[in-house]
Amino acid sequence: MKILAIDSSGLVASVAVVEDDVLQGEYTINFKRTHSEVLLPMLDALKKDLQLDLESVDAIAVAAGPGSFTGLRIGSATAKGLGLALDKPIVPVPTVDALAYNLYGSNRLICPLMDARRNQTYTGLYRFTEDGTFEVVTAQKVCAIEEIIEEINGLGEPVIILGDGVPVFREAFAKLATVSVIEAPAHVNKQRAGAVACLGQLLYKEGKAESAADHRPEYLRLSQAERERKERLAREAEAKV
Amino acid sequence: MKILAIDSSGLVASVAVVEDDVLQGEYTINFKRTHSEVLLPMLDALKKDLQLDLESVDAIAVAAGPGSFTGLRIGSATAKGLGLALDKPIVPVPTVDALAYNLYGSNRLICPLMDARRNQTYTGLYRFTEDGTFEVVTAQKVCAIEEIIEEINGLGEPVIILGDGVPVFREAFAKLATVSVIEAPAHVNKQRAGAVACLGQLLYKEGKAESAADHRPEYLRLSQAERERKERLAREAEAKV
Repeated sequence: MKILAIDSSGLVASVAVVEDDVLQGEYTINFKRTHSEVLLPMLDALKKDLQLDLESVDAIAVAAGPGSFTGLRIGSATAKGLGLALDKPIVPVPTVDALAYNLYGSNRLICPLMDARRNQTYTGLYRFTEDGTFEVVTAQKVCAIEEIIEEINGLGEPVIILGDGVPVFREAFAKLATVSVIEAPAHVNKQRAGAVACLGQLLYKEGKAESAADHRPEYLRLSQAERERKERLAREAEAKV
Repeated sequence: MKILAIDSSGLVASVAVVEDDVLQGEYTINFKRTHSEVLLPMLDALKKDLQLDLESVDAIAVAAGPGSFTGLRIGSATAKGLGLALDKPIVPVPTVDALAYNLYGSNRLICPLMDARRNQTYTGLYRFTEDGTFEVVTAQKVCAIEEIIEEINGLGEPVIILGDGVPVFREAFAKLATVSVIEAPAHVNKQRAGAVACLGQLLYKEGKAESAADHRPEYLRLSQAERERKERLAREAEAKV
């Protein structure tokens, strides 16, 4: 099975092609240029280097959220465009799950942390059984940093943290965590389309694909504009009473 | 600290730039094109995408062997050329160690397997302590597949195997291993320059850098041409007695 994968959910832009147990190619950039500038040229470079016939792909896996609203829209729009043009299904991969999947076979509880601003984090808890099975302990969600640390303390297991939220929430962990905490090193601590592709393969086999027309990113919460509109409407409704 | 890393020790060609705990960019291709064709264009693409000033790099990490003789020579020659031109040190990273480092924090003994032909493998044994420290249990070496499996059986720990040797030696493990054996999935089962960079950072801090002029790859055994010459000379010496 051949999977083309895209992750532009955070600061990282990454594309990869995996066929069965071979990562044929992967291109990852974590730099200040915007995803709309880099994502398609990276995909094009990979396509050329692999002499890739896009028709040969079985499905398109995409980091489907949560994450940066603009980043998710660029990733999902790219996946939808490819899916519609090629008539291929989309496998939406939960962003936080894919981050955890970087640490395949970890001997610790895995806690990805994405900075969701306003002291909140997109996070979840994961572990690998000894036979390499990926277990979702707490499904991805948005919450206060204190909430997820409390949950980890309750489980009482050593934890490894990763993601762009690590520098933001390092101090909170130092202050509140009652278990051993370590940070993942650079080669496994951010989004990688290779991980999205491999987890996407598993999800595809479980039947979790959808049509390109149906696919939508999962923001997990309202955008700032939507939130402000809701608050304004609530204020106006109150003023009228 | 900023590290530029190169791995062309096997079928994979990979380049990466890591600064401290951030993988700024990584480009990996596992395809039938030769390393001499792809490695420099990949490095050039990464340099452009990261607007990378090569002068800003502190050291060049290279997968320094064992591996494909031609691949190692291309990788080391590229690293030496860059090192000499930029006056930067080289950090030679043992290829098998870097392969194992892919599986950061693994809950199993790690056994990378590279096909060294003639029923031999470039291999080693590694583990991570619970605090994330990388331990070399058996340093990289070339040996018969039976030898490393016997060593694993002696340790009696569950093991995870990875590398291009997995399809070659899968049957030997099924027949001879007395411990649980699993295979690493595609996103973590082959060479990655990101892993070379991160392990290179650690080695650099331990003072294990060398000058570009001094750097040489570690083949671990003679090339086929050297072996044949040695055998021929031995036969000739014998014929003269």
